[in-house]
Amino acid sequence: MAPKVLICGAIQTEQLFWADDDVKQLLGPIAEYFDSTDRTDFLKGFQPGEKYEGTVAMFRDNNLTDKIGIFDKELVDAFPSSVKWIAHQRRTKHAKAKEYPFTLVIGIIVSNTPGAVDDASATTALYLLISTFRNYAISEPQWTSSKIHDLTGHTLAILGLGGIGMRLADLAHAFPMRIIYHSRNKVADAPEWCEYFENVEEMLGQADVLSVHVPLRPDTVHLKGAIIINTARGKVIDEEAMIRALEDGHLASIGLDVYPNEPEVNPKLLEFPYITLLPHMGTENQDTQRKMEVRALKNVQEYLTIGSGKGYCTGVPKV
Amino acid sequence: MAPKVLICGAIQTEQLFWADDDVKQLLGPIAEYFDSTDRTDFLKGFQPGEKYEGTVAMFRDNNLTDKIGIFDKELVDAFPSSVKWIAHQRRTKHAKAKEYPFTLVIGIIVSNTPGAVDDASATTALYLLISTFRNYAISEPQWTSSKIHDLTGHTLAILGLGGIGMRLADLAHAFPMRIIYHSRNKVADAPEWCEYFENVEEMLGQADVLSVHVPLRPDTVHLKGAIIINTARGKVIDEEAMIRALEDGHLASIGLDVYPNEPEVNPKLLEFPYITLLPHMGTENQDTQRKMEVRALKNVQEYLTIGSGKGYCTGVPKV
Repeated sequence: MAPKVLICGAIQTEQLFWADDDVKQLLGPIAEYFDSTDRTDFLKGFQPGEKYEGTVAMFRDNNLTDKIGIFDKELVDAFPSSVKWIAHQRRTKHAKAKEYPFTLVIGIIVSNTPGAVDDASATTALYLLISTFRNYAISEPQWTSSKIHDLTGHTLAILGLGGIGMRLADLAHAFPMRIIYHSRNKVADAPEWCEYFENVEEMLGQADVLSVHVPLRPDTVHLKGAIIINTARGKVIDEEAMIRALEDGHLASIGLDVYPNEPEVNPKLLEFPYITLLPHMGTENQDTQRKMEVRALKNVQEYLTIGSGKGYCTGVPKV
Repeated sequence: MAPKVLICGAIQTEQLFWADDDVKQLLGPIAEYFDSTDRTDFLKGFQPGEKYEGTVAMFRDNNLTDKIGIFDKELVDAFPSSVKWIAHQRRTKHAKAKEYPFTLVIGIIVSNTPGAVDDASATTALYLLISTFRNYAISEPQWTSSKIHDLTGHTLAILGLGGIGMRLADLAHAFPMRIIYHSRNKVADAPEWCEYFENVEEMLGQADVLSVHVPLRPDTVHLKGAIIINTARGKVIDEEAMIRALEDGHLASIGLDVYPNEPEVNPKLLEFPYITLLPHMGTENQDTQRKMEVRALKNVQEYLTIGSGKGYCTGVPKV
């Protein structure tokens, strides 16, 4: 008998589930799969003798599970012991910290989808970089070009050279920009044109623009005349310190896709006409949604066929 | 005696003349140079025995010559016969067609600065491409990603693969996007990943986005669901046809830096909240201004030293 996989989300709502064809192709030949979108149905189905009994893996799309709700203790306690794998399709809408610790306790592996958003997020960072560098947020033409530069030949500092940081490095290197970075350790497989700085202050001293992918200490926003780009999380930067740095001219501009208290935006930010603000659209496109879904489905497929998630597994997903 | 060069524009206003150091370095050792910013001074100085007598070359920065005005018949007639070269620093503010025919008649060579704006213009096109593809012009977050795509893997069609088109191809290829192009002839030195289409309609049938660098026929705006980017000149596209195509959905979006009657913008364009409009900022930055100035100064230098402008000469500059 084919193993049972539960898709938490509605396959039939095609406009939200981009990987509709992929689910047939990836799981069709090796699994019996069902979809559920309702918490009551979900809880009932797991009872002995009910339709979801014996389920071994689940695909979970945060965006499609609103009627199921978060995977809290009630839900996880209801899982039959057959459940071994939850392929989480990472989205930012739910706070994972609240839920997955329960699964860890009972020995369910949770996989996430690293890499799937690198392209979309890095493209957003590149957009903010061009917009701030070239002063495109200003709605009136500026007939003086005194403060505006080409990107080419200028220096982009990347704080945290993970998947998104490396993808941004690639795109900016095409101009070329000079790429410098700091992370806890030198990235072994980074190309030689990515210059590593062990000392973050030393790196910032050479940066025309800084793209932030790990938390930034408040004192490091005192960059001289540089630009900060944030597409990571609003709270990685001390917002008040950043605003003061804009006001006193230590920062030339900022480009933000994320805010500490989304969807609220600090009204002080709206007073700077030359900065660029996006309403957290970093990964909002169908290609990236599908990439996340496919990666999560592949994690299920790999678990069912080779018994592992091929490096995508984690006890508690990275938030 | 060192040859005389007249800089039409004020060297001392450093905030506008970015190549201030370059002029010393390039012309200092080989020429005696003056600057003039005033038409009366300019006309008087060319009289026999006056200070500009014997001038052989001129550097002309459109933006700095407002008090001199356009190089009309009155001005050109006043030039002494010693004037052989005008190194024009290309800007879009003045209509060259009105003036340079006079110089052509009397045998003065006019050089322009091709290539200097390629980077800045192509970066503007890339910005419009990202903005329209990812729907960033919408000021409210869109919690559906139904119509939005990653650039990666999509097809960029370039109409006119000159310097700017090729630079855009390079930047978009970094994602990578698939690059297809049409021009009157196949570009001999284009890389193999630039696919040539002899038939423009055939190319448009495969395009997700079209970047226009030569005139577009009205019937070709009927692209199915695609995006048009224009950073060239407002009049290369039939604006009314483009607006109709947006209204009836044949065009998904447009990104414009240029308009037929600048600085006026057709109010109909402002009714589409998802399109991206820039106020002709394509080359507005100090690095590109300096590149144009340096290229024009080098044309003078090359004329004085090797007697030619090394391929940058033209009887009538391209507008």
